[in-house]
Amino acid sequence: MNKGKLFVFTGPSGTGKGTILSEVLAAEPRLRVSVSATTRTPREGEIHGIHYWFMNHSTFEEKIAQNAFLEHACYVGNYYGTPEEPVNEQLDAGYDVILEIEVQGAMQIHDKRPDAVMIFVAPPSMEELEHRLYGRGTENSEKVAERLEQAKKELTYQKQFDYIIVNDTLSDAVFDLRSIIHAEHCRVEP
Amino acid sequence: MNKGKLFVFTGPSGTGKGTILSEVLAAEPRLRVSVSATTRTPREGEIHGIHYWFMNHSTFEEKIAQNAFLEHACYVGNYYGTPEEPVNEQLDAGYDVILEIEVQGAMQIHDKRPDAVMIFVAPPSMEELEHRLYGRGTENSEKVAERLEQAKKELTYQKQFDYIIVNDTLSDAVFDLRSIIHAEHCRVEP
Repeated sequence: MNKGKLFVFTGPSGTGKGTILSEVLAAEPRLRVSVSATTRTPREGEIHGIHYWFMNHSTFEEKIAQNAFLEHACYVGNYYGTPEEPVNEQLDAGYDVILEIEVQGAMQIHDKRPDAVMIFVAPPSMEELEHRLYGRGTENSEKVAERLEQAKKELTYQKQFDYIIVNDTLSDAVFDLRSIIHAEHCRVEP
Repeated sequence: MNKGKLFVFTGPSGTGKGTILSEVLAAEPRLRVSVSATTRTPREGEIHGIHYWFMNHSTFEEKIAQNAFLEHACYVGNYYGTPEEPVNEQLDAGYDVILEIEVQGAMQIHDKRPDAVMIFVAPPSMEELEHRLYGRGTENSEKVAERLEQAKKELTYQKQFDYIIVNDTLSDAVFDLRSIIHAEHCRVEP
């Protein structure tokens, strides 16, 4: 079996990354998601190695020092990151690996792994993104305004990606992501 | 509507280009094939502008002088070529255009149109290609040997293409070509 390919899948909050990815995973048996590492406490039902690699602060910081993460960040006092070794193991075994991560994390990988195929999910418009964020019903107008501000910043990075998927219709976006994965396997290495 | 994209689709004789393309055309309403020009006499039922643009030798040679062809060649005393203007008209109207042509013609377009997405169809192996050429039942062993010799030469060009589709299973090859077309619409221009 040939070596797999590494895909980075990112975009602003509310663009529907998770929904697109879960449909694509169901259709692509060769595709695996990476498991993140975190220092936060496991929640009820969360399994080590499935939902997260759970580790304590000092282990995480040791791994940062060893350059063991493809990307990492700190949110509200806890570390989150993508360990590189399990990703490489899956790629060597012939699986494609996709990382669904924040835009800032994606930019870290961009520099570290020139082999990574960089995919950005964009909303059809800022109006539509606002509409979707309100539609979730979980966020007040202050929080939505904050997310829109963040999205505007993140959208300025899209030209640094290999592909942009505009998530207008879910089924089209799912077909776009599947197309990118298959087309990349046909691509002639420069 | 956005401008369409130009695809060049080539590969050795017997690799199944025509079969792949007819299935993809049926699935992709935005995709059009280009119509070739020729100086040969129309056969029963062939319609000008549908099967070929029929023209006489002097008109064809005038158009060569005007650089009006994306590619052209002479076979057994007749000219064949792809006029550029109708291709550009379709692209401007928002259609993708695909040219199913010989490898030598494809290499001419490679130089002339850097915007063209270059796709090469390869057989899974030379043994399988030989098997398919005999399977057609239309060619004797001398003719098959000639075609295999030609295929070997043409395969040396494949690294100059953007994509290679190995036509092992027809349905996979059809999905590969559709994937390339859709992925190219998501690609960020460098």
